[in-house]
Amino acid sequence: MTDTKVSIFDQDLPQTPANHAPMSPLSFIERTAEVYPTRLAIVHGELRQDWATTYRRSRQLASALSKAGIGKNDTVAVMLPNTPPMVEAHFGIPMAGAVLNALNTRLDPQTIAFMLDHGEAKAVIVDPEFSGVMKNALALRQSSTPILVLDVEDALYNGPSEKIGASTYEAFVASGDAAFAWSLPADEWDAIALNYTSGTTGNPKGVVYHHRGAATNAISNILEWDMPKHAAYLWTLPMFHCNGWCFPWTLAARAAVNVCLRRVDAQAIFDAIRQHGVTHYCGAPIVHGLLVNAPQSMKAGVPAGVKAMVAGAAPPASMIEGMEQMGFDLTHVYGLTEVYGPATVCAQHDDWNALDIGERARLNARQGVRYHLERDVRVLDPETMQPVPQDGETMGEIMFKGNIAMKGYLKNPKATQEAFAGGWFHSGDLAVQYPDGYIKIKDRSKDIIISGGENISSIEVEDVLYRHPDVLAAAVVAKPDARWGETPCAFVELKAGAQTTPEQIVAHCKQHLAGFKVPRAVVFGELPKTSTGKIQKFELRKLAGSAQAIDV
Amino acid sequence: MTDTKVSIFDQDLPQTPANHAPMSPLSFIERTAEVYPTRLAIVHGELRQDWATTYRRSRQLASALSKAGIGKNDTVAVMLPNTPPMVEAHFGIPMAGAVLNALNTRLDPQTIAFMLDHGEAKAVIVDPEFSGVMKNALALRQSSTPILVLDVEDALYNGPSEKIGASTYEAFVASGDAAFAWSLPADEWDAIALNYTSGTTGNPKGVVYHHRGAATNAISNILEWDMPKHAAYLWTLPMFHCNGWCFPWTLAARAAVNVCLRRVDAQAIFDAIRQHGVTHYCGAPIVHGLLVNAPQSMKAGVPAGVKAMVAGAAPPASMIEGMEQMGFDLTHVYGLTEVYGPATVCAQHDDWNALDIGERARLNARQGVRYHLERDVRVLDPETMQPVPQDGETMGEIMFKGNIAMKGYLKNPKATQEAFAGGWFHSGDLAVQYPDGYIKIKDRSKDIIISGGENISSIEVEDVLYRHPDVLAAAVVAKPDARWGETPCAFVELKAGAQTTPEQIVAHCKQHLAGFKVPRAVVFGELPKTSTGKIQKFELRKLAGSAQAIDV
Repeated sequence: MTDTKVSIFDQDLPQTPANHAPMSPLSFIERTAEVYPTRLAIVHGELRQDWATTYRRSRQLASALSKAGIGKNDTVAVMLPNTPPMVEAHFGIPMAGAVLNALNTRLDPQTIAFMLDHGEAKAVIVDPEFSGVMKNALALRQSSTPILVLDVEDALYNGPSEKIGASTYEAFVASGDAAFAWSLPADEWDAIALNYTSGTTGNPKGVVYHHRGAATNAISNILEWDMPKHAAYLWTLPMFHCNGWCFPWTLAARAAVNVCLRRVDAQAIFDAIRQHGVTHYCGAPIVHGLLVNAPQSMKAGVPAGVKAMVAGAAPPASMIEGMEQMGFDLTHVYGLTEVYGPATVCAQHDDWNALDIGERARLNARQGVRYHLERDVRVLDPETMQPVPQDGETMGEIMFKGNIAMKGYLKNPKATQEAFAGGWFHSGDLAVQYPDGYIKIKDRSKDIIISGGENISSIEVEDVLYRHPDVLAAAVVAKPDARWGETPCAFVELKAGAQTTPEQIVAHCKQHLAGFKVPRAVVFGELPKTSTGKIQKFELRKLAGSAQAIDV
Repeated sequence: MTDTKVSIFDQDLPQTPANHAPMSPLSFIERTAEVYPTRLAIVHGELRQDWATTYRRSRQLASALSKAGIGKNDTVAVMLPNTPPMVEAHFGIPMAGAVLNALNTRLDPQTIAFMLDHGEAKAVIVDPEFSGVMKNALALRQSSTPILVLDVEDALYNGPSEKIGASTYEAFVASGDAAFAWSLPADEWDAIALNYTSGTTGNPKGVVYHHRGAATNAISNILEWDMPKHAAYLWTLPMFHCNGWCFPWTLAARAAVNVCLRRVDAQAIFDAIRQHGVTHYCGAPIVHGLLVNAPQSMKAGVPAGVKAMVAGAAPPASMIEGMEQMGFDLTHVYGLTEVYGPATVCAQHDDWNALDIGERARLNARQGVRYHLERDVRVLDPETMQPVPQDGETMGEIMFKGNIAMKGYLKNPKATQEAFAGGWFHSGDLAVQYPDGYIKIKDRSKDIIISGGENISSIEVEDVLYRHPDVLAAAVVAKPDARWGETPCAFVELKAGAQTTPEQIVAHCKQHLAGFKVPRAVVFGELPKTSTGKIQKFELRKLAGSAQAIDV
């Protein structure tokens, strides 16, 4: 075929409204509200809200925003825990054509003010618990553009609060038209959400999600978990974190139940599982650890078969074992804000079940393979952009490619271009790839410790620390060293009542690690964590220099 | 915001290879071969072929086609039953950039020759059973373009055959490179398959499928069925029929098992269910009827919980009851070639279980609601393009909109434009919509009978005929009538040993139908059916004129 001849398959076969529609998770709630109108959508305290009502309220929210002059590509921020308005925000805001910016509720007023300014928010919806922080943040804004503030009321919150907005959320929703003629985005590449990275150094970056990616990741969640229709999902994972890994949209596609939770608490979680028949939940290791380590009496009557997803760090053997004892089924996933939350999964194989717990834990500790609808995930040499050998040894950088990747960083073309250089999204995580294709993180690029010219994976040392029976949490960072350049420094949080000494920790490490990888200093104490349970290594690095060295 | 200002969400956030990839079912087999290489992909007789091998062979097929000069937008026809080469064709042919044209194996040489000419096939892969028909078809071709013919060999076929091609399929695959660097389509709108409609009048139309639609329908199949990973799917539905409703691609996405079947036969189906742990299958009502009516001894040891999909006609109460007695779970779906097979589903509700069988059958007989990832399906007035009232009474035409709709008709812009007029795909099926949004077909536009100015739904009369205990199959068509214009004429296939008379059938109809809807003629005999089990009403219309009238 010559270039000048158009193929018969490209002639007179255009895209039309009949055979082409933008992919968007907004389609999911529309269908579910039509097909399963009376199915339960949201549980919150005494509230039982069905899908028809949730769709109607989302349309009213969209209508009210529209009447307030907020529409296409306007940012609407929310400062909400996992409550019904947060679920509705995931639909109502984009139905108005606007972009949802879910703020981390544990941030300080300065950082929030930065985000409101940078994202050019036209409105913000605030939970009563955060009215004080938000009031301060609003005062710190540099922009002079007016911002519409809406106060959520929640009977389940009874702490200090004040009304800071023009209207309550309820009154605002009530002012909207339930028959509002929302439409899908003109283009599935349009923005649906804005999520700021935690930004351990410098200002947070604004990660822009598009409708196509949100729909793709939401469906991939279903595929990975074999998630059935009408599942009951408990909101242990903050919805401000990568839009709850896209699960608000997943649950709409499944006509499933959002079991809301204002605060992560073992008793509340077990109660919800028993009372609402919870079948699925997600969280950082700390959430699962909370359940595993809860008193036996609290677990009474909890049915087997609950499915859990863990990300943020590899689940240690003790956690996998503890989950198995509860009859819970744990799936290890991995991702970043830039890839809509998890975009790899440690897909399990039947023959793993025959292995001992240590080997199972080793296999499950890997970050695994690409999500179902992601195009590709590889460990590449960041210099050559070639795949590293799949030998479980050679380090490279984890890179993603496909529809589960952000539109880019807001107002930051340089960072966007760097992140996507060479046609892959650069995760910044260093890893190896095993012969079976599974990826295993060795470290964040910036967390690697270089001692006497040798790379030390902080994660490898942490894995060994976690194997010590008295260790609850551990983090290893570089300690400046006159002779070696850097040496590993361990920060360890012990379990209650533990009597272990730093020397005993070092002795334990020597049994399992090459000498140069053994920490030269061990500091006991509570570890600083981010709102999503990640240990803040940059805080520990500040302390490492003055940590007392141990003679190893 | 003014029109001239570009939004911050549209600035410097372009699609790149890192964050945008064409949707295509070819991604599914690539991932599955990597993640589950040793999982069983294909069972055929003694053959057990895993996913790594199936992917490798598909790449070899693509490579061999490429070496033969067949590539982007070239048509490759196949004349194959549900055997391993048919599964491989669904991947290897589009991996070469080519378009798969799966021919109906029950067609005559003239029609096949028409399709080879019209589709401009560059190659055809032929099962030994159809070498004779294909040889004749090739001789009838009008095109002088050379065509590459490949002979499949199959130990499970031992009827008459001859080699008609340049090579065997096996030798051809073996000549291909297992490391062939195939690529996804440059554009997800590119063609992946060409399927000819049965064309009851005039020449068949060539329905072009695109990669985006194929992927979308394949995933919707999973969502509707809650289909788990590693399901075992029995090929009772011909893969030449709408690409087996996109299930070859669905099964690749699920790392599931293709249990092949050369011929639909009750004993073989029950054997496969027992032997291979079949969990899912699809088919026209005739397939399920075959199982329901099989002797009890044949069903021994068949486990409960097998999931079945039925399309082509609503399942009558007796079939639903029979399936329930076997412990099978039946889902009613509906679609057309133009929407990749099924694109609506009669989604069931828990509270239906409490209803009696008659009421359950009535609810399940409806064509239901749109598939998960289809944008919309409605009953519209074809004149005004407005939705009909959802009253279960007002008739309109079923129309589809969204990504599960063909690219269009090949080399037929007029038919394409008509089919998509007003931004909807016009199905040609007349239906009502119930208050719960569920659609129920009343008739094909062309099957409606107009008697004395009144519309008579042939399906309504057929439903009544099916309720008669002696009726195995029934079809009602218009009989020209000097006084009424048309009257209903019933063609009935009786169960073996039945003694019913035409007069008794008419008496039965009078009990359930208004007088003007009662057939004025009843003809007993075997009904002509298409290869997919649909009754050929156009054949019956030829006979209706001379049918003996009964005094009603």
